[in-house]
Amino acid sequence: MKYRSHCPINFAQETFGDKWSLLVMRDLIFKDKKYYNEFLASDEKISTNILADRLSKLEMNGLIIKSTDKENQAKKRYSLTNKGLDLLPMLLEMIAWSAKYDSQTEAPDTFIQSLKSNRQALIEKLTADLGDITA
Amino acid sequence: MKYRSHCPINFAQETFGDKWSLLVMRDLIFKDKKYYNEFLASDEKISTNILADRLSKLEMNGLIIKSTDKENQAKKRYSLTNKGLDLLPMLLEMIAWSAKYDSQTEAPDTFIQSLKSNRQALIEKLTADLGDITA
Repeated sequence: MKYRSHCPINFAQETFGDKWSLLVMRDLIFKDKKYYNEFLASDEKISTNILADRLSKLEMNGLIIKSTDKENQAKKRYSLTNKGLDLLPMLLEMIAWSAKYDSQTEAPDTFIQSLKSNRQALIEKLTADLGDITA
Repeated sequence: MKYRSHCPINFAQETFGDKWSLLVMRDLIFKDKKYYNEFLASDEKISTNILADRLSKLEMNGLIIKSTDKENQAKKRYSLTNKGLDLLPMLLEMIAWSAKYDSQTEAPDTFIQSLKSNRQALIEKLTADLGDITA
């Protein structure tokens, strides 16, 4: 892949992609979603063609892995890679910023409090909860 | 403005906008740029119509302020608001992620080292260097 520049702010965005991609990463990291239909059902009403495109780009860029579901061979299951999970600290800062500036934020108070008072512990807890990171 | 959801990950991205918007924020926060032509000259070759649109959206969403340049009344000067500057911690995490995963990253080693070893001090230093935040 040819990048417009290797400025780190540019690289990150060219790699994880746009708004829709980060909503999929949110669903994987914070909402325990794993299947296409679960991503499709999110509040922001992503369209099916955008979702398919973003999943394929996230996979191509090594942020997620697609595998066959153990319980249903016809179903595809999406999991985070370490590279994908490593977006967590950035997503936490994004959450903190929105909690500060959106009066109608859905970010839970308790979450924001633990982010402010003990960021590193929160990162470790979330990472441990996620369990079986793939690669 | 009507948001697709008040999920904090969604709110942030609907507010600061897309890739191009964050490159403008990067130029303001890290590269001491203040003028239209300076943003236009960045490596990623933003087009003039996209730049004009993103500047106007960033201003509308309260991340930047446009004023008349003191030395040249015909020139517009862009400055950060506190709301815009508060994206700094998120941008730093984005930089750290890219430095880890982009073998050709432009992020300086010394910068990444000080981000890893003393994040809070780096945030305070960068904020102090920026000086006259507008609102």
